[in-house]
Amino acid sequence: MIEDKNQQRTKLSDLGEFGLIDHLTKNFKITHKSTVKGIGDDAAVLEFNKKRIVVTTDLLVEGVHFDLSYMPLKHLGYKSIVVNLSDVFAMNAKATQVTVSIAVSNRFPLEALEELYAGIETAAHIYNVDVIGGDTTSSTTGLLISVTAIGEVESGLEVYRNGAKPSDLLVVTGDLGAAYMGLQVLEREKEVYKVNPNNQPDLEPYSYIIERQLKPEARKDVVKLLEELDVKPTAMIDVSDGLSSEIIHICKQSEVGCDLYEDKIPLDPQVISTCEEFNIDSTTVALNGGEDYELLFTISQADYPKIKANPNLTIIGHMKDASEGLHLVTRADTRIPIKAQGWKNFNE
Amino acid sequence: MIEDKNQQRTKLSDLGEFGLIDHLTKNFKITHKSTVKGIGDDAAVLEFNKKRIVVTTDLLVEGVHFDLSYMPLKHLGYKSIVVNLSDVFAMNAKATQVTVSIAVSNRFPLEALEELYAGIETAAHIYNVDVIGGDTTSSTTGLLISVTAIGEVESGLEVYRNGAKPSDLLVVTGDLGAAYMGLQVLEREKEVYKVNPNNQPDLEPYSYIIERQLKPEARKDVVKLLEELDVKPTAMIDVSDGLSSEIIHICKQSEVGCDLYEDKIPLDPQVISTCEEFNIDSTTVALNGGEDYELLFTISQADYPKIKANPNLTIIGHMKDASEGLHLVTRADTRIPIKAQGWKNFNE
Repeated sequence: MIEDKNQQRTKLSDLGEFGLIDHLTKNFKITHKSTVKGIGDDAAVLEFNKKRIVVTTDLLVEGVHFDLSYMPLKHLGYKSIVVNLSDVFAMNAKATQVTVSIAVSNRFPLEALEELYAGIETAAHIYNVDVIGGDTTSSTTGLLISVTAIGEVESGLEVYRNGAKPSDLLVVTGDLGAAYMGLQVLEREKEVYKVNPNNQPDLEPYSYIIERQLKPEARKDVVKLLEELDVKPTAMIDVSDGLSSEIIHICKQSEVGCDLYEDKIPLDPQVISTCEEFNIDSTTVALNGGEDYELLFTISQADYPKIKANPNLTIIGHMKDASEGLHLVTRADTRIPIKAQGWKNFNE
Repeated sequence: MIEDKNQQRTKLSDLGEFGLIDHLTKNFKITHKSTVKGIGDDAAVLEFNKKRIVVTTDLLVEGVHFDLSYMPLKHLGYKSIVVNLSDVFAMNAKATQVTVSIAVSNRFPLEALEELYAGIETAAHIYNVDVIGGDTTSSTTGLLISVTAIGEVESGLEVYRNGAKPSDLLVVTGDLGAAYMGLQVLEREKEVYKVNPNNQPDLEPYSYIIERQLKPEARKDVVKLLEELDVKPTAMIDVSDGLSSEIIHICKQSEVGCDLYEDKIPLDPQVISTCEEFNIDSTTVALNGGEDYELLFTISQADYPKIKANPNLTIIGHMKDASEGLHLVTRADTRIPIKAQGWKNFNE
């Protein structure tokens, strides 16, 4: 019936994800004093009896976020938890509980859901979170997973996206671009499989990047490490959409600029070699690939001695005055503006 | 790929919703002391600094839970919030926050989502809850809404499903069966519309039951009323799947039996007349229709004077020893066992 109405129509793809959320929620008001932070960060922050609780939720949709032709259900269950916990850790909080809802079509037998839940259980065990509820329903097509994660943090220790200051250092954990290149390899093998189902691919040279795509980990260890190092980031976000998108979020919400140094971006050797094989620029992959689930944060320069030489942490840039803009400083020492790649789901 | 595997397959419809959830989550362990109650009630209960928080989540799927050919998007947005708040109220808690995630296909223009969010905003305003987050993504087909609701309750005042005692009174709010009969009218008009799109139906005689289907309300007022009456139910649940299913939940978890009196079941005159028109038994509709979002609870007989003659509350039965079983006592004074109708989604 909606399609029949002869009224103004604006395509969702014209707005992109963030524009869409901003637009739809702009009239929403916060009225409870227990709501410390609503929409707009990695997670919402609530306060009950001076204890701060973070809440975050994600939807994973078959055909949009995952492809069951190469994503084992156990891995999918695992990943569905991890991507939510990553948002909890990005608030500098400890994850404590999750709810898991699934909509599933009749084509899935019980044994398939058992695999999915085995992955969920494994993630819940490894990350020590309680699965406290959910909803299980049928769908007309495909599989959809909705996870809400809850965490706790001492009041004042939570880290938002909006606290970065000019001259702060920009730090990222782990390495970037691997999940995206793992996906490229899996997509290629799927095409090969379609032509020749008997072909046995040798995926050994891609083991790290494929694991980063199929079984990512969230950086619970980094929240603990920061506590041990006595470092409270001034701003933090997890790298789910891609480094450039996350830098833009921090800069926009903190009202600062940024210089990002291309030669500092941490890349695994498998990412570099696979980028060469696919003839893709590895910096572009690190900037726009996404699904890394690393943490990106800013710290005061005074904290530099505490983090230097830590193998988990790489300083990749520094924050500047907002008027100086956001730039990638290339290996050739040219300055290229960092732009949002945005969200391509609605264009597909 | 899943379909290709030649292994044991169990159809989801063989288990039903509750059997499925029980089966999939039976290995899940609770490890955090902040988790007071996990899976198995209307909502989970968490405790942070002695404040109890309830958390509940629901998925609404197009083609399963709603049909956009007669469900206006604004009503759908409203209903998606209400059905979740109903679970919060069923814990005797006050609703404070919600997260709303949607997966939506490209066929929806922005203006359709604005309608949906206008309904969400209206419900959030009327029920005084903050919308604190969510996720917006594309789907390959249709619309799916996932809502998580959060509430708070003083420690010790939350009400579970498992506290009913033999001789307790069984009480229900409002009236039952209207939402189901509203759906029957809407389904009939949809068929008429298919044959003759110019036909203008007269829905005036069905206004109440259609509103109960399209724009249900959750009984926030009853939580307040119980507080004012100084009554703490021994067990409580909301009527979403149908009276018989909810009675079974309470009896099973409380390990009690029940006599339900057919002549006490509250029915609106429109439900009775529409049942006659459709030649359906109104008791069957009240027992199995569902989507009433009324509260069903048990109270100690000592509390009877506090609730008697309250127009919002109807005593419909009393609890018995588990060995006496669950029965409907008919108008003809025969005793019929109450059976689960279960969950038909996976059979459709």
